[in-house]
Amino acid sequence: MNKQELIENIKRKQSFLCVGLDTDIKKIPDHLLDSHEPVFAFNKAIIDATADLCVAYKPNLAFYECLGVKGWQALEKTVKYIREQYPDQFIIADAKRGDIGNTSAMYARSFFEDMDIDAVTVAPYMGEDSVTPFLTYKDKWVILLALTSNKGSHDFQLTMDVDGERLFEKVLRKSQTWAGDDRMMYVVGATQGQAFEDIRKIVPNHFLLVPGVGAQGGSLEEVCRYGMTKECGLIVNSSRGIIYASKGTDFAEAARRAAQEVQRQMAEQLKSIF
Amino acid sequence: MNKQELIENIKRKQSFLCVGLDTDIKKIPDHLLDSHEPVFAFNKAIIDATADLCVAYKPNLAFYECLGVKGWQALEKTVKYIREQYPDQFIIADAKRGDIGNTSAMYARSFFEDMDIDAVTVAPYMGEDSVTPFLTYKDKWVILLALTSNKGSHDFQLTMDVDGERLFEKVLRKSQTWAGDDRMMYVVGATQGQAFEDIRKIVPNHFLLVPGVGAQGGSLEEVCRYGMTKECGLIVNSSRGIIYASKGTDFAEAARRAAQEVQRQMAEQLKSIF
Repeated sequence: MNKQELIENIKRKQSFLCVGLDTDIKKIPDHLLDSHEPVFAFNKAIIDATADLCVAYKPNLAFYECLGVKGWQALEKTVKYIREQYPDQFIIADAKRGDIGNTSAMYARSFFEDMDIDAVTVAPYMGEDSVTPFLTYKDKWVILLALTSNKGSHDFQLTMDVDGERLFEKVLRKSQTWAGDDRMMYVVGATQGQAFEDIRKIVPNHFLLVPGVGAQGGSLEEVCRYGMTKECGLIVNSSRGIIYASKGTDFAEAARRAAQEVQRQMAEQLKSIF
Repeated sequence: MNKQELIENIKRKQSFLCVGLDTDIKKIPDHLLDSHEPVFAFNKAIIDATADLCVAYKPNLAFYECLGVKGWQALEKTVKYIREQYPDQFIIADAKRGDIGNTSAMYARSFFEDMDIDAVTVAPYMGEDSVTPFLTYKDKWVILLALTSNKGSHDFQLTMDVDGERLFEKVLRKSQTWAGDDRMMYVVGATQGQAFEDIRKIVPNHFLLVPGVGAQGGSLEEVCRYGMTKECGLIVNSSRGIIYASKGTDFAEAARRAAQEVQRQMAEQLKSIF
């Protein structure tokens, strides 16, 4: 999917919500555990209940890998289901990969060619040649970790370097020489508040993928105040707050209600630009 | 496996070689492609040909993931085979993971509980709470990226901070407060030469996992000169130089000869300490 299509979807759906498919077999409703493929059954129900309210889905690969072969099957089936049933969805593999060039190329092949996923999250620590193999595919995206939502973001990302920039700013600046805003986005945690202002000085037009609203405590209003551009420029993710809104047989309806509430807030924010 | 057992294995085998199982379906000998499980068949032959010459195996997960479900099956089968046939081998999942706490915990469960792997490579960018979930398992290890072997290591890892330390030094120093040398190792590329001296000032006793000898151009002698401790303190990885030593039906014998040559050089280096 290209940038213009993504913007059109946001405008049309009045939503920049990404639903995080962090599907933990230990947290899904008991009645699904009897089904042949409980993880896929859960995902399918969540997707059907939320697809008109969001523009993206983000399976977090850890939750699938921890189930081994079965988890990988559930992931492939989930991606295929979204692709076929809801072709306007932007699919993000939250993988946080990044390795030497020939290895990153293997990951890129896996996500972009075999699974036809739109975007992959990538860690910047290993530098340019670990990221560029992901940048050779048309209309496919790298979402580079810049300033994450967790406490550990203070350990290195906010480290000041000798030129007076923090590491996450150096990542933003340097990575812009690798690709433009047509195939690069950045992860910026919703918990980082006013740092969005500093980030927008360096990347005024890039889309930001923003986790941390909901369970992690970030504020949607604050993210929009400091981070929204005239093209929106934000994809805000919510995982646990939506997919685990209920543990009962009504989990899908509860997820829909939770997504509706977020979408309503997003429509409010979008009034100022669309 | 604990540190003392690893050192004993190195002493006994006169080797600190790790064979990297970067098994690329596009590079394995043609005659294996007819077999039911070509990747596992290749790995099994390589393992049987080299197990007495090395102390560790390191499957790089990208090469398995890119095959989807089949790749994951090959990985699980390979790990199980090593565990059962060669229980003295230290198994490293080269995964370069690192995510927010609850996600890292899922990865840890996957590698340490389900697969009984000894160690996982982890990226430090997201800081302490992305790493600590991997540190709660007895005799299981985190191998944290410090200074990698690729060109991109110059983009951020060698960035100087305001306190006059480079980012990789900050990673080494800070991460020592998370765990001791009984469950933490560091990745340091063989191509980094004299940086090993600076690294040993900060982590005098930690094991270092050293990729980059062979195809990437690092020198074993230089690594040992600057990086070896009185307990060895090194696991040196070779992947392509060993597993693709021949593309013919003699690939396993050729891999053995290549591993023998490295082991011989290692035995020479170990003379000074054991």
